Amino acid sequence: MRALVFDTTLRLDSRHPDPIPELGDTLIKVRRAGICSTDLEILKGYMGFKGVMGHEFVGDVLSSPRRELIGQRVVGEINVVCGRCDLCMSGLSNHCRNRTVMGIQNRPGCFAEFVRLPESVLHVVPRSVDDDSAVFTEPLAAACAVLRQIRIEGKTWVTVLGDGRLGLLCAQVLRNAGAPVRVVGRNPAKLALCEKWQVRSRLLSDIVPRHDQDVVVDCTGSAEGLEIAVAMCRPRGMVILKSTAATGKSLNLAPVVVDEITIVGSRCGPFREALQLLETKAVDVASLTTRRYRLDQGLDAFAHAGRKGTLKVLLTFD
Amino acid sequence: MRALVFDTTLRLDSRHPDPIPELGDTLIKVRRAGICSTDLEILKGYMGFKGVMGHEFVGDVLSSPRRELIGQRVVGEINVVCGRCDLCMSGLSNHCRNRTVMGIQNRPGCFAEFVRLPESVLHVVPRSVDDDSAVFTEPLAAACAVLRQIRIEGKTWVTVLGDGRLGLLCAQVLRNAGAPVRVVGRNPAKLALCEKWQVRSRLLSDIVPRHDQDVVVDCTGSAEGLEIAVAMCRPRGMVILKSTAATGKSLNLAPVVVDEITIVGSRCGPFREALQLLETKAVDVASLTTRRYRLDQGLDAFAHAGRKGTLKVLLTFD
Repeated sequence: MRALVFDTTLRLDSRHPDPIPELGDTLIKVRRAGICSTDLEILKGYMGFKGVMGHEFVGDVLSSPRRELIGQRVVGEINVVCGRCDLCMSGLSNHCRNRTVMGIQNRPGCFAEFVRLPESVLHVVPRSVDDDSAVFTEPLAAACAVLRQIRIEGKTWVTVLGDGRLGLLCAQVLRNAGAPVRVVGRNPAKLALCEKWQVRSRLLSDIVPRHDQDVVVDCTGSAEGLEIAVAMCRPRGMVILKSTAATGKSLNLAPVVVDEITIVGSRCGPFREALQLLETKAVDVASLTTRRYRLDQGLDAFAHAGRKGTLKVLLTFD
Repeated sequence: MRALVFDTTLRLDSRHPDPIPELGDTLIKVRRAGICSTDLEILKGYMGFKGVMGHEFVGDVLSSPRRELIGQRVVGEINVVCGRCDLCMSGLSNHCRNRTVMGIQNRPGCFAEFVRLPESVLHVVPRSVDDDSAVFTEPLAAACAVLRQIRIEGKTWVTVLGDGRLGLLCAQVLRNAGAPVRVVGRNPAKLALCEKWQVRSRLLSDIVPRHDQDVVVDCTGSAEGLEIAVAMCRPRGMVILKSTAATGKSLNLAPVVVDEITIVGSRCGPFREALQLLETKAVDVASLTTRRYRLDQGLDAFAHAGRKGTLKVLLTFD
């Protein structure tokens, strides 16, 4: 099969071995996949991952031990867990000590014609959700995770810092939850989308951090971003740290202590909620797609995804 | 009066102007003061503070609008607040936007023969608590603050990272709260104190971080320490960040996101609780005093406080 593979460089392997489903696995033909910031970080060495890349997809089930899945259109959670370790047993299975993570850690990804996964991580996509939207389930679920980490009340002032893909998803999810959310970013075109969604937005260059936000969701992926997020946050406020980065950066920690800020790392989220948001059209993901590329043009797609101003770049498999 | 003053360097000023109590202020003659890591950081530029240093003391009230305080032995909280700003009004007065902080921010400190403070921050010291112990009230209160930020249950595994003054106070406070606490540090002599207190301890060089602690209290004051603390912490666990440092350091944030760690900055704590612990001898502070110096020997005292292996250095005013 054709697959986008990273070892020392990213390359299109047109004769990659087809996945052989292990006992209990489901085989899926990929319809659409999305390139994420984490993919771009992997190219810089994040997680030391080698292999077929990709963890955002929608596809058709070709074979499965769960017969009713065959022929269904599905999306898949990225963590494949053991179900037996202390973390799985204590309700933290997303953090399973023996986990593999599709396209990120010891498990081939979905930037390939076929991908195999256990049926336990698959979710059937409602008919009314098209492929271009369904491929956003994974990042939208990650945005929904924020709601489980903070308490939104009418008077909770929330800033989403960063106007990238994840920031714009978080902003919409927080708006739906009733928070007076605003997005602070650097890109006027991206911030213009916020207006369409009735979300306030400001250019980073136009604001001075005032230590007055109850919650700041840092979607910048940079240590500089975290410092700004901390400076925006009121004393005893909370910074939700959404994005990973490959390298360590210099960071002044004293304000975290002086203002007694809580920083909460946030990763994967609930697929069911995300699919429901897509089904009810409560979140606009169509506006987030910058361009589609065929799998064969994968290297161009990655180059485009890495350019400033780009939102989501999708891969098609027709 | 004599005072230890920092402007570009630390010096003993033997003709420093006596404090003139403003309306409502209480004048205190200092009996004993303690040098803290924050003082050492101020010498490196932390907070840009200039003036009389020091924020840990016990002393005698010479004059006060609250007559019953006169002649009493007192300790004082370090934050002097406005009582009118949004943070004061919302119960976060320690974070008052207009606050001054004794010896740290826009307010003269207590490494001087006299110090003035509003009576609202003063606490009378019980007779049974001697001066050498009472001077630990402020750092012990800071250690007690940790208990308000975490939930200790029988099965909560807690590591205090760092065997300095604050780490050893935190360890005792957490032990009293019933947590199976252990201290991890670099100094065998300091760790030997833990044995006396029935607190487990390990040399940092003897352990491998295993992502298994529910709570790690980082008292190292270094970015490297925070990275180790995060690596010790179980997924969804909590790192309490106790110590400030003057400069930014490189820090890899990805593990905070991947393991969804919560980092909580922690600063000042409840004086009442600390005085009660001293009165009931529930915490051993006597073992933490390395040496006493007279105020006149203040420069030597600071040099000693900064040397490896030192615990608490006190200043006397006889």
